[in-house]
Amino acid sequence: MDRLTGERLVDDMTEAERDRAKRVEAVLPALRAAAERADADGAFPEGHVDLLRDAGLLGLVVPVEHGGLGGGLRDLAAATFAMGTACPSTALAYFFHNTSASRGLLPLEAIEAGLFDDADVPTVRAFAHKVLDRMAGGTWLANFASESVKSSSANIAISTTARPATRDGVDGWLIDGEKSFGCATGVADTYLVTARIDGSTTADGLALFLVPRDADGVANRPSWDGLGMRGSSNHGITLHEVWVPADEALTVSGAFVKMLQCSRGSFVGNQLAITAVYVGCAQGVYDETLRGLTTKTFADTGRPIAESPMHQVIIGDMTENLETAYLWLRRQLLLETSEPPLAPKSDVYRQWRLAKGSICEAAFAVAVGAFKASGTSNATLHGTMGRALRDLAMGLVMTFPPERGRLEAASMVTASRANDLFTPVAPGGAK
Amino acid sequence: MDRLTGERLVDDMTEAERDRAKRVEAVLPALRAAAERADADGAFPEGHVDLLRDAGLLGLVVPVEHGGLGGGLRDLAAATFAMGTACPSTALAYFFHNTSASRGLLPLEAIEAGLFDDADVPTVRAFAHKVLDRMAGGTWLANFASESVKSSSANIAISTTARPATRDGVDGWLIDGEKSFGCATGVADTYLVTARIDGSTTADGLALFLVPRDADGVANRPSWDGLGMRGSSNHGITLHEVWVPADEALTVSGAFVKMLQCSRGSFVGNQLAITAVYVGCAQGVYDETLRGLTTKTFADTGRPIAESPMHQVIIGDMTENLETAYLWLRRQLLLETSEPPLAPKSDVYRQWRLAKGSICEAAFAVAVGAFKASGTSNATLHGTMGRALRDLAMGLVMTFPPERGRLEAASMVTASRANDLFTPVAPGGAK
Amino acid sequence: MDRLTGERLVDDMTEAERDRAKRVEAVLPALRAAAERADADGAFPEGHVDLLRDAGLLGLVVPVEHGGLGGGLRDLAAATFAMGTACPSTALAYFFHNTSASRGLLPLEAIEAGLFDDADVPTVRAFAHKVLDRMAGGTWLANFASESVKSSSANIAISTTARPATRDGVDGWLIDGEKSFGCATGVADTYLVTARIDGSTTADGLALFLVPRDADGVANRPSWDGLGMRGSSNHGITLHEVWVPADEALTVSGAFVKMLQCSRGSFVGNQLAITAVYVGCAQGVYDETLRGLTTKTFADTGRPIAESPMHQVIIGDMTENLETAYLWLRRQLLLETSEPPLAPKSDVYRQWRLAKGSICEAAFAVAVGAFKASGTSNATLHGTMGRALRDLAMGLVMTFPPERGRLEAASMVTASRANDLFTPVAPGGAK
Amino acid sequence: MDRLTGERLVDDMTEAERDRAKRVEAVLPALRAAAERADADGAFPEGHVDLLRDAGLLGLVVPVEHGGLGGGLRDLAAATFAMGTACPSTALAYFFHNTSASRGLLPLEAIEAGLFDDADVPTVRAFAHKVLDRMAGGTWLANFASESVKSSSANIAISTTARPATRDGVDGWLIDGEKSFGCATGVADTYLVTARIDGSTTADGLALFLVPRDADGVANRPSWDGLGMRGSSNHGITLHEVWVPADEALTVSGAFVKMLQCSRGSFVGNQLAITAVYVGCAQGVYDETLRGLTTKTFADTGRPIAESPMHQVIIGDMTENLETAYLWLRRQLLLETSEPPLAPKSDVYRQWRLAKGSICEAAFAVAVGAFKASGTSNATLHGTMGRALRDLAMGLVMTFPPERGRLEAASMVTASRANDLFTPVAPGGAK
Repeated sequence: MDRLTGERLVDDMTEAERDRAKRVEAVLPALRAAAERADADGAFPEGHVDLLRDAGLLGLVVPVEHGGLGGGLRDLAAATFAMGTACPSTALAYFFHNTSASRGLLPLEAIEAGLFDDADVPTVRAFAHKVLDRMAGGTWLANFASESVKSSSANIAISTTARPATRDGVDGWLIDGEKSFGCATGVADTYLVTARIDGSTTADGLALFLVPRDADGVANRPSWDGLGMRGSSNHGITLHEVWVPADEALTVSGAFVKMLQCSRGSFVGNQLAITAVYVGCAQGVYDETLRGLTTKTFADTGRPIAESPMHQVIIGDMTENLETAYLWLRRQLLLETSEPPLAPKSDVYRQWRLAKGSICEAAFAVAVGAFKASGTSNATLHGTMGRALRDLAMGLVMTFPPERGRLEAASMVTASRANDLFTPVAPGGAK
Repeated sequence: MDRLTGERLVDDMTEAERDRAKRVEAVLPALRAAAERADADGAFPEGHVDLLRDAGLLGLVVPVEHGGLGGGLRDLAAATFAMGTACPSTALAYFFHNTSASRGLLPLEAIEAGLFDDADVPTVRAFAHKVLDRMAGGTWLANFASESVKSSSANIAISTTARPATRDGVDGWLIDGEKSFGCATGVADTYLVTARIDGSTTADGLALFLVPRDADGVANRPSWDGLGMRGSSNHGITLHEVWVPADEALTVSGAFVKMLQCSRGSFVGNQLAITAVYVGCAQGVYDETLRGLTTKTFADTGRPIAESPMHQVIIGDMTENLETAYLWLRRQLLLETSEPPLAPKSDVYRQWRLAKGSICEAAFAVAVGAFKASGTSNATLHGTMGRALRDLAMGLVMTFPPERGRLEAASMVTASRANDLFTPVAPGGAK
Repeated sequence: MDRLTGERLVDDMTEAERDRAKRVEAVLPALRAAAERADADGAFPEGHVDLLRDAGLLGLVVPVEHGGLGGGLRDLAAATFAMGTACPSTALAYFFHNTSASRGLLPLEAIEAGLFDDADVPTVRAFAHKVLDRMAGGTWLANFASESVKSSSANIAISTTARPATRDGVDGWLIDGEKSFGCATGVADTYLVTARIDGSTTADGLALFLVPRDADGVANRPSWDGLGMRGSSNHGITLHEVWVPADEALTVSGAFVKMLQCSRGSFVGNQLAITAVYVGCAQGVYDETLRGLTTKTFADTGRPIAESPMHQVIIGDMTENLETAYLWLRRQLLLETSEPPLAPKSDVYRQWRLAKGSICEAAFAVAVGAFKASGTSNATLHGTMGRALRDLAMGLVMTFPPERGRLEAASMVTASRANDLFTPVAPGGAK
Repeated sequence: MDRLTGERLVDDMTEAERDRAKRVEAVLPALRAAAERADADGAFPEGHVDLLRDAGLLGLVVPVEHGGLGGGLRDLAAATFAMGTACPSTALAYFFHNTSASRGLLPLEAIEAGLFDDADVPTVRAFAHKVLDRMAGGTWLANFASESVKSSSANIAISTTARPATRDGVDGWLIDGEKSFGCATGVADTYLVTARIDGSTTADGLALFLVPRDADGVANRPSWDGLGMRGSSNHGITLHEVWVPADEALTVSGAFVKMLQCSRGSFVGNQLAITAVYVGCAQGVYDETLRGLTTKTFADTGRPIAESPMHQVIIGDMTENLETAYLWLRRQLLLETSEPPLAPKSDVYRQWRLAKGSICEAAFAVAVGAFKASGTSNATLHGTMGRALRDLAMGLVMTFPPERGRLEAASMVTASRANDLFTPVAPGGAK
């Protein structure tokens, strides 16, 4: 095994990273084999939880001291990319499991940074450890944050609420609400649910709850017949008076906001790995397209179809689009992992607003090119080309579309520029 | 009923055209109601043949003297466009039925133009009348031309063959081959099959055969799980020693080529109506998107979602793309119907090479915009947005992709320009 | 002279239109010969005023009863297009002269429509006749409307003011202000200046003044070193207490607004002819590029450079872009001239917002393609390729850029759709 | 001086690199001050040779042991980028001076690699040292390679010839030919001329000659009125029987080809630095545009013009395009400088074919955006917006346009894929 799939994205892996990437490489054939079926069924393949657990991959980004593999964002991106080449749906679900780790790691960083009152530290630390220990221990911890309500001013609006409730003498919380999107619905062991404390009106009231899949009051939402990423079982859940004991929750006021402050870049610091799924998918359909076009020949000349002028034009465009996706993703990864940081957090964040859309748009363009180049006979619903087109279309809407990212970047650029005009310059210093 | 759907495309209809368009308008609700189911089932709704027959629409472009409605290309485009807003699959199948009429009309024109030997005229005329009379009489006559073999030098390569064979004392032909694509497979009353006379090596050997759906030796190909246009039952047929009596065939040498000479523009003179299907579909998803975005409101401000800056950008782009599709289509329609002709046939043909791709690309862009603007909750497989994205993706591969059309146009432009340099100029004349 | 240049745009000219177009055709060689020099000098060629006057073209769109040629918008567009192929700067200046006619024609229409009080009619009519008679009589009447101040809510903001002032016993007005843009500065016989009556705060206070080029207080602004359209002498004027007698002005309150109500489409009803200049320029550089590429050959193969794969791709794209520009322009022309109207004025106006940007963007893309295809040796400042690139770049900023047009169209579409939801439907009527 | 201009491109400079970059930073104000004049005059500012010589920058990429500053490709790219923000023409000329160093460095590498016969080594080494020593010693050594003849199969065709000729008993060469493009024509101290030995028919016959600017028989070609990069004096020279002594030439057979073999990537290993000029220019016009739009306000609202929806859209697009240019350039720089190499040379070369066009296209798009956003009043020929548009247009034609690069990449991808099908796989090894 010379070059690992993930090294197409992260091409300067350390030996430790390669070791972790090998675990990913080993599960790819199984993912690839199950991909078309998962898409057709619209369900996350049940065996995959065990497959990834057995490969030790549920603790990929959990520190070694908590029993994990000790990987970081580079590992996660390489993993979701590699899985994306085989089964984008699984890669997506796996991504969301891993994002749960940030709810352990960021609170610990916030403690280090002195953001918490001393009194709160033990509670916060205990919860953080619990999240990390469970993940490393083999719990699939699905992160359920999104809701369907739309706000003009925020990317995510939370209306699920939690109110205090004692049960059998144990302090705890009753949760009510609906999570409209969440991968591995009905499959994950535990849902990590974000809710707001009843009565709170600001982000300080956001809290986290570990909800067992089979807890009373938890129900799967109706199966959502998505256009793509159908094998990720992302229909979400409803929660009706679901009781969670206090020590399975992080309800310290302001904890969520403090977490965010410790993130290096995109939102909670790992969103770029979701775009790695799309780039992996684009690479997969690109490879499959070239394989077909260089193998199949014209009946009259015997030359590969790939050589026709039209195909050369489309292949040239696909190649550029694919590379464009890699460029944005690698840069974002560098910005969020380099030590010392190459740029201030605000720049990293702004870059992400552009990168997200540009990556997904370029990846989708690869799929469209593959579709056009592969002709009518490959234009099937469940085949590689049709599946990639559908899976990658999802990237255009998930999180936010490219148009929104560009407008946000423009707004940030303009505002900072307007401010610059009044920036005091230190004596003797020049820019 | 003030403005008919088809008038969004053909905005200067005559009264006769409006009368015919009203028949189309009347079936739209039924088409619309059945569309999602047809897509999910991947089958042409059975009742639709009767529906369109009862509406008199099977003879839409058949001259009145043959019992038809006497419509022309403008009627056909208006009809497929209007049906495209309701059920693109039905519109597509209906388009292919109507293309069969060209196999009646063009031979008659070729006779008028003196292209046939006198001896052949009665045979050719008899076949032409038969085609037209049957269509007007209520026969769904599916046009089966395409095959899957690819040639670097031709758009369509025909390998299905016909050899002479007498049966029960009746002269006829035995047909063998496979038609890889053809709408209303298993549903049409009769298939109009293009084959080449065994032993022929040029287009002069192309011949036409009227093959009853249930003829011996005819079998449906396996159902083709297409990405889009799934309700058109386009999986095609295999023909194994299918016998057709001589008077159900047009085997006069060179007849096909002579037909083509009489076409005014795109191929057999009506291909533009297939792109009207796509524009109709684009208009449909555009309307649905705006309806949604102007109705649904932000939870915090109560303002329509359509008003967000991002949505305004996407809507602006969608509007331009939709209009672009109309522009190319209306111009092509004008070029192929104006009297006297606005441009020589070679220009009309070249324009078509560009128009086909530009229309389909713009229509697809509308669907992508609709998909992005409508958000994750509308990103379903069978809903309006997902269906339009899939149906319109088919336009990118059907016939030929935009990249091919542009290269062909470039080649024509360059060649004619190179020739121009040696054009003799009449004395006293100037360009 | 078989086909006239203008017929490439208006391909269904009447005989009367052809007669008028022949006058335009006759001046093209002189315009073409002077174009490069005009660009290099940055000045409108002096002889051109006489040239166009002698050709009778100053009254092209003035009704016959006023001594003009009786042409309409189709004539104007054909003329500016044809001139655009030869010298875009002259075409632009000529366009602005012709827009002055709307200040004669629209008031007359407004009178017909009963928009003016009876008492005002004679004054309004007299001014209108004066404008038309002078143009037909050979006066170059440069329309000076634009100013440099920017408003977020209006396309044009007018700060030039006029206050009443009697001179030698004659009632009149004193005008002060600056017109930042105006073709044929220092060359036109008369400037048609839009100003607001001192003290007025709404569009009702806008008034028109006929200012002789050499009137006291009129001065040319410093020569403006424009990137393109340099031969149009568009630097504009300053007016310092310029006195104009009352009968050389139209100061009836609300006259300007009433005029606008009678325009059929884009602004004052002829703006589309400015985009015809750009399309003409694009056609010119396209032709020149193909001439070069099909004539010049590769040193090693002797084949025309146009045949290289790269050139074929660029030529294909140029051909599509050029055609796209034509499509938008022809459609707009049809919408603004068809009888009966194909669409309500609001639709015509909205279409214009899209069309303007799309035409200019496509024309500019042709120039960029020409530039790329023609190679370094043709990448000169004053040669055809460089000139076209610069002239067509101006189209991206003049009036408004494509991005603005699309946003405005989106806003109109959204608002009308939102309104639609509450549209009362007449009993028995359905859409 | 906190952050150096060049660090916007190379954001992980070493201290040594920063020291060298400070020399570049110091000359930027002088370059910026002279830029508009240089463009208007169409001439390389004379004082700039001394300016850069005095700053020690003529030896930027010459090894320390030859008296240079010891910089590498990262230094060169950072330098041409930084200069590009101030005066793209100077940056371009400076780039071509530095490319001469490859004619010293690559032969030395080829000697190291054992590519030369022992007998040739002293000659080759002596020439290489001479090139490097002179550059470090303050000689502006303009690299004159390009000729105007076009070949369908090669990027550069050389028809300038050299034939042996003894003069005053000294062996030497007589050179005849024309160099159609070369920066610092008439300004450089010495021209490094590529010619082919008379009678040779392959690249083995290519040779290098050091030709003093004022040598007999050397004449400037007529000043070339370029659209952009006008301040680089790139009109080239003619050589008529120009005699060069043997020790001022490298005529060893095959030397040129052996040099190329040692280049890491793009052509002779530093072409990417020419695209850094364009990215610098794009950054410059981007900054200037934002400065203007955030400072200038709407007359009615007092808000910065940058905040209008249209401006936000354009700024968003400009920001994305600018970043896209950086991404391609930074990646290419990494591929050509990383140790150990991240990818095989063939991949690096293929990436360059895409990168060149993508960088230049994105940079040009920034200029178009700047032009549109800045409005008519900034659409001047010699101002920042107009200059950037013209300078960056040159990037679309220099070397090769984007369309060519994409087709070449497609061809390489297709061919390598076709080969892959027959790749022998080592036993036990898997990919």
